[in-house]
Amino acid sequence: MIDLDTISTQPPSNISKNEGKKGLVQLRKELFELQNKFYADGRFGLLIILQGMDTSGKDGTIRHSLSSMNPQGVQVKSFKKPTEEELKHDFLWRVYPHIPPKGMIQVFNRSYYEDLLMPMVANSLSEEVLAHRCKLIKYLEQHLRLSNIHVLKFFLHISKEEQKERIQERLSKPHKRWKYSIADEKAAKQWDAYRAAYNMAITNCDDPSWYIIPADKRWYRNYSVANILTDHLKKHNLKYPNT
Amino acid sequence: MIDLDTISTQPPSNISKNEGKKGLVQLRKELFELQNKFYADGRFGLLIILQGMDTSGKDGTIRHSLSSMNPQGVQVKSFKKPTEEELKHDFLWRVYPHIPPKGMIQVFNRSYYEDLLMPMVANSLSEEVLAHRCKLIKYLEQHLRLSNIHVLKFFLHISKEEQKERIQERLSKPHKRWKYSIADEKAAKQWDAYRAAYNMAITNCDDPSWYIIPADKRWYRNYSVANILTDHLKKHNLKYPNT
Repeated sequence: MIDLDTISTQPPSNISKNEGKKGLVQLRKELFELQNKFYADGRFGLLIILQGMDTSGKDGTIRHSLSSMNPQGVQVKSFKKPTEEELKHDFLWRVYPHIPPKGMIQVFNRSYYEDLLMPMVANSLSEEVLAHRCKLIKYLEQHLRLSNIHVLKFFLHISKEEQKERIQERLSKPHKRWKYSIADEKAAKQWDAYRAAYNMAITNCDDPSWYIIPADKRWYRNYSVANILTDHLKKHNLKYPNT
Repeated sequence: MIDLDTISTQPPSNISKNEGKKGLVQLRKELFELQNKFYADGRFGLLIILQGMDTSGKDGTIRHSLSSMNPQGVQVKSFKKPTEEELKHDFLWRVYPHIPPKGMIQVFNRSYYEDLLMPMVANSLSEEVLAHRCKLIKYLEQHLRLSNIHVLKFFLHISKEEQKERIQERLSKPHKRWKYSIADEKAAKQWDAYRAAYNMAITNCDDPSWYIIPADKRWYRNYSVANILTDHLKKHNLKYPNT
């Protein structure tokens, strides 16, 4: 069982802020080229899942690490609180139209994992249903891999103290204030329950494994996500057709 | 392991053609009322899956057994050979938008089971992928039940001789000729391979169990499907809200 409390939220000591910032500039250039090749190659699809506590930096990661690529081949879908129509459906219904085809990169800002985490925190579903959701998600992700749709899962890992600071920051800085909502404060109060839910989800839905990104420092978070994505794309020997 | 060869394709002896035809008229009236209540009740959704060899009568079943209900609450989706766009996606992608919400009845004329049966017959996917698809389908159907979307699966069971006659009929009768296609003859040649694939799918994806409908006689097939559907809807103590 993974215990997030034992994993550092700080950058490793072998990289400086300056190196991370320069590295990101370079990685963004590489990603621009790699994504083009990925699209042309057309053998694989890629689903990137961003999860993390409130204020952990999902939006910032998309803006800084995933925005250098051609938007024709990259789509972002944010999953908010389900609408009334969505609640009449099973939880995968609103997700499935956004599962990418081969050639495309799809980013999920939050995902079907919320349908596991939220009911755990709210205690609104039986153990049986939660256990089944967990297994279904495992099967789904394996199914995608078998269909040549790869899944990269990132957990943006911040400390409780950092979250507190970021909520304060949203209140005090005019250009961040619009992001503040009462829900943020409520989520902060439920820190322990969310933490337990994430420990469970990360432990049990581990194929593919999660990348746990130390995210207290934004520069490292951005660098790290871009770095892992670049590595992933390079691994597959992508080719332009007929070359 | 189910062996379809050991199961009769003929009506049971305790019902005559006349009783079956009269029974269907009555059942269609009941279904008209029950579906309205089902829609108003809104606690459950229903997915009806029709599978069977070519010429087994899927279209006819929809026309005779499932057409007395309000089309506002009943939808039919036919799954044909996947398009080029659909083939870029995993096999569930084209299915999922048609998974019904609560209150609705959705009929699948063929279904995701084709993505298990066809590759088995064509020998186009590895054992590993086929076994995984089989398990994923099991999990998916359980997931739907846990989400209050019930699944009723009908296998329309005809004999090889009956199929041969029906293909001949399509060729000889002007009003049936449009339904004939070369694919029918090819499918007839692959009878044994399809039979083995169905034995596997029906045995392994058995939660909920399949209804194996003796379908050599159209009157019995229509009566039987309508009868099972009526029973299913009655079981759930459907209510108009606030009554």
